[in-house]
Amino acid sequence: MTADSRFSVYGKMTAKTGQRDELVARLADLLRLDTPGLEWCSINTALDDPDTIWVTEIWTDKVTHDAQTRSEAVVAATARVMELVAAPPEGAYGHLAHLHDGRAG
Amino acid sequence: MTADSRFSVYGKMTAKTGQRDELVARLADLLRLDTPGLEWCSINTALDDPDTIWVTEIWTDKVTHDAQTRSEAVVAATARVMELVAAPPEGAYGHLAHLHDGRAG
Repeated sequence: MTADSRFSVYGKMTAKTGQRDELVARLADLLRLDTPGLEWCSINTALDDPDTIWVTEIWTDKVTHDAQTRSEAVVAATARVMELVAAPPEGAYGHLAHLHDGRAG
Repeated sequence: MTADSRFSVYGKMTAKTGQRDELVARLADLLRLDTPGLEWCSINTALDDPDTIWVTEIWTDKVTHDAQTRSEAVVAATARVMELVAAPPEGAYGHLAHLHDGRAG
């Protein structure tokens, strides 16, 4: 398996009751910041739990991810996200091993 | 938050010891099947565990996902994947709430 330097992030968050949509909105605000190196990010609402979302991200590499997530703007936007989270997020870091883009035809 | 019909899947699998790369390869084989409606899929290796991978998928909708994952070819390829899995996969289903494609410029 050829190593891909792209860096993957998975995070699961539970919103305070009734705050899921606002949590998604604040995460979307975060994504509108200029974050060079963030190639792809999805925010998803869980089918079986009205308060839970999960986020998947792909970055060009870990160094870029670490630098971008420590920028002043991202730290401030992340703080706003965390105001709406009921418990510490769960998650995992890793590397992209394979990517299928069905839209690429 | 406007509802997006796109259907999201997250799955975490632990390979039998030493079989992670083969597990990724068999998942990639599965993705090479003709699966109309599968817009996007990433296979990721966990940083903190040499046997764990996670997969994220986005489908046009749940009905398409359910139909495609029951096709004969996908069932057979999934069985080959499961031969290498050490424990039942964990996962979640949901809907796409927001998508950021940094490559779209």
